[in-house]
Amino acid sequence: MIRTAALRVLLFIVLVPLSYPALAQTDPLPSWNDGAAKTSITDFVARTTAQGNPDFVPQDQRIAVFDNDGTLWIEQPMYVQLAFILDRVRALAPQNPAWKSKQPYKAVLDGNMKALAASGEKGLVELMAVTHAGMTADEFSKIVTDWIAAARHPKFNKPYTELVYQPMLEVLAYLRANGFKTFIVSGGGIEFMRPWAEKVYGIPPEQVVGSSIKTRFEMRDGRPVLMRLPQINFIDDKTGKPVGINQHIGRRPIAAFGNSDGDLEMLQWTTMEGSGARFGLIVHHTDAEREYAYDRQSHVGKLDKALDAAALNKWTLADMKKDWRRVFAFQ
Amino acid sequence: MIRTAALRVLLFIVLVPLSYPALAQTDPLPSWNDGAAKTSITDFVARTTAQGNPDFVPQDQRIAVFDNDGTLWIEQPMYVQLAFILDRVRALAPQNPAWKSKQPYKAVLDGNMKALAASGEKGLVELMAVTHAGMTADEFSKIVTDWIAAARHPKFNKPYTELVYQPMLEVLAYLRANGFKTFIVSGGGIEFMRPWAEKVYGIPPEQVVGSSIKTRFEMRDGRPVLMRLPQINFIDDKTGKPVGINQHIGRRPIAAFGNSDGDLEMLQWTTMEGSGARFGLIVHHTDAEREYAYDRQSHVGKLDKALDAAALNKWTLADMKKDWRRVFAFQ
Repeated sequence: MIRTAALRVLLFIVLVPLSYPALAQTDPLPSWNDGAAKTSITDFVARTTAQGNPDFVPQDQRIAVFDNDGTLWIEQPMYVQLAFILDRVRALAPQNPAWKSKQPYKAVLDGNMKALAASGEKGLVELMAVTHAGMTADEFSKIVTDWIAAARHPKFNKPYTELVYQPMLEVLAYLRANGFKTFIVSGGGIEFMRPWAEKVYGIPPEQVVGSSIKTRFEMRDGRPVLMRLPQINFIDDKTGKPVGINQHIGRRPIAAFGNSDGDLEMLQWTTMEGSGARFGLIVHHTDAEREYAYDRQSHVGKLDKALDAAALNKWTLADMKKDWRRVFAFQ
Repeated sequence: MIRTAALRVLLFIVLVPLSYPALAQTDPLPSWNDGAAKTSITDFVARTTAQGNPDFVPQDQRIAVFDNDGTLWIEQPMYVQLAFILDRVRALAPQNPAWKSKQPYKAVLDGNMKALAASGEKGLVELMAVTHAGMTADEFSKIVTDWIAAARHPKFNKPYTELVYQPMLEVLAYLRANGFKTFIVSGGGIEFMRPWAEKVYGIPPEQVVGSSIKTRFEMRDGRPVLMRLPQINFIDDKTGKPVGINQHIGRRPIAAFGNSDGDLEMLQWTTMEGSGARFGLIVHHTDAEREYAYDRQSHVGKLDKALDAAALNKWTLADMKKDWRRVFAFQ
C-alpha cells in the first residue's frame, strides 16, 4: 500500500509537467475579443516558438519592445509625466515665492494651460529642469515613488498605475511565458518609469529604455551619489527609438508595439529589416467611452504617419473599441 | 518486474533534483587556489543567497558588474580594441593612398608606436573615427566578428577570445548559477564587445555596457539602418562607469569586479552605499610568466588609487600569481 501510494505521488510529480501543453490551451489573452488582431498575436507567437517551424526564433532572440504612453497606459488628457511636472511645481512653489509672478511657473500655479502652452518648448524644458534635476538619482526615485502612489487621474479618479491596459498586460505576460524578453522603449523619462515599471508591468529597471538627463558621479559627505543635471542626455522618441534600442538592447527586436507617430521608426526598425518573422502592432484609441478616441488630429499621441505605415507594412491595428473586451482591470 | 523498473526510473527522475545540494558541494571555482580571495567569493555568494541569512538578497537584486579589459580578458601589451584599430587602418590603407604620408596614419603603417603616441588623443580620436564610424551598426558588427576570428595576440599567438581568464569565467558561471545577473561595464566600445561577448562570457548584448559613438537612424534604399557617426556619445570609464550603470541597469549592483583605476568609481558606487552585503574585487596582475605583471606604473590598466582604496574598503585583491591555479583555459 505504501508503495502504491508512493508510486502515485511519484507519478503525479512526474506527469504534471507533461500536462503543460493542455494548460497552455486556455486563452492567454482573455481581455481581447476574438478577431484578426488577437489571432495575429497568437499566430506570431505560435510560429516563432514552435521547434521545426520555418519561422522559429531561438529564445535569446525573442526581443519585444513596447512604447509606454498610450500603448501600455493612459496618455490623455496629458502625458502622466507632465501631470507629475505640474504637481511638482505646485509642491515646490512655497519654497520659491518668486514663481508667483514668473512664467512659466505662474501659468502652472494659476492652472492657466493656455499661458503654459505659450511658453513653448523653452518653458517646458525649464519646468523639466527644476522638477527633474538638482537631486540625486536615489532622491528622484523616491519623489516619483511617492507621487505615483498619491496622484489620481482627473477623469477616472484612479492611480495612474491602475490605468494600464489589461489587454496589453496580458500580451506582456503571454510573450514572457513564451520565452520573450519584454522591454519598454518610451519617449518618457527612464527614471520616471523605473520606480514602478517592475511592479506594474513585470519589467525590471534594466529593461526600461527612455529619455534621460545627464548625471554626474560625485562623493558627497564621503558617499558616492549620482547628481541629476539640468541637461538633456537623450530623447528616446521617433528616430531616437531605434538608437535607444541599439544602445540598450544591442540587437533588433522581432516584435514592436506602439500607438503614435513617435513609434514609427521603432516599428520600421523592428519589422522592415532582417530575415524571419516580425510583428508590429499599433493600439488605435477608438473608445471615447471607456478611454479616449484620438488619432490624426491629436496633440498628445498623434497617430497619422504611423497609421498609414501600418497598412503598408501589415502591422496589426488593435482597435480599442472593437478588439478589447475591457480596457482596464477595474472595468 | 515492469512495475519495479518503472518505479526505479521514476525514483531516478524524482531524486536527481534532490541530489543537487550534494552536487553543489563540488568546487565551483576549480581554477582558484584555496585562500582568502576564493573564500571571500564563496562566502559572499553563500550569505546573499541563503534564505534566512541576514545578508540574503532577493534574486532580482543580485546584479554583478565586471570590467572587461584586464578583468575578464587580456589588455597587454595594448588594449585589444587598439590592436583592432591598427589592423583596420592597415586594411583600409590601400583605399586611402594619402595615408602613407599623413599622421597619425603613417605612424600606424610604419609600425612606429612612438610617432603614434606623439599624435596624442587627437590622433587616436581620428583613428577611432575612420575605423569605427561611416558604416551601419550591422556592418560594424560584421567587421568586428571577422576581425576577432582572425586576429592573434602577439605574445601567445592565440585568438583574443581564448585569452580570457578561466578563473573569472568560473566566477561568472558561479554567480549566474546562484541567480545573479552578470553585466559587463567596460571603457571599451559597447559595439566592439557585443558581437562576441555572449559566446565567450555568456553575457547577452543587452547586458553589455560600454563606451559608444553616436548613431543616426535613416532609411537607405527603403531599408532602416543606424549609421555610425564620428562623434563620441559616452565614455564608460572612471566616473562614467556609475553613470553607465545607472543608465543601463537602473539599480545598484551588489558586486563589482575590476582591475584598474578606471574601475575605482564603479567599485565605490557598488560597495559604499546602501544597506546589505556588498562585494568588490580587484584582479592584481602579478604574473609576468603566465600573463603580465603591472600596476602603479603601467600606462595600460594602471592600478594605483584603486589599489589603495581596496585596502581601505576591504575589497578582495585577487593576486593572479598566488590565487589563480591557471590563468587561461589552454594552460
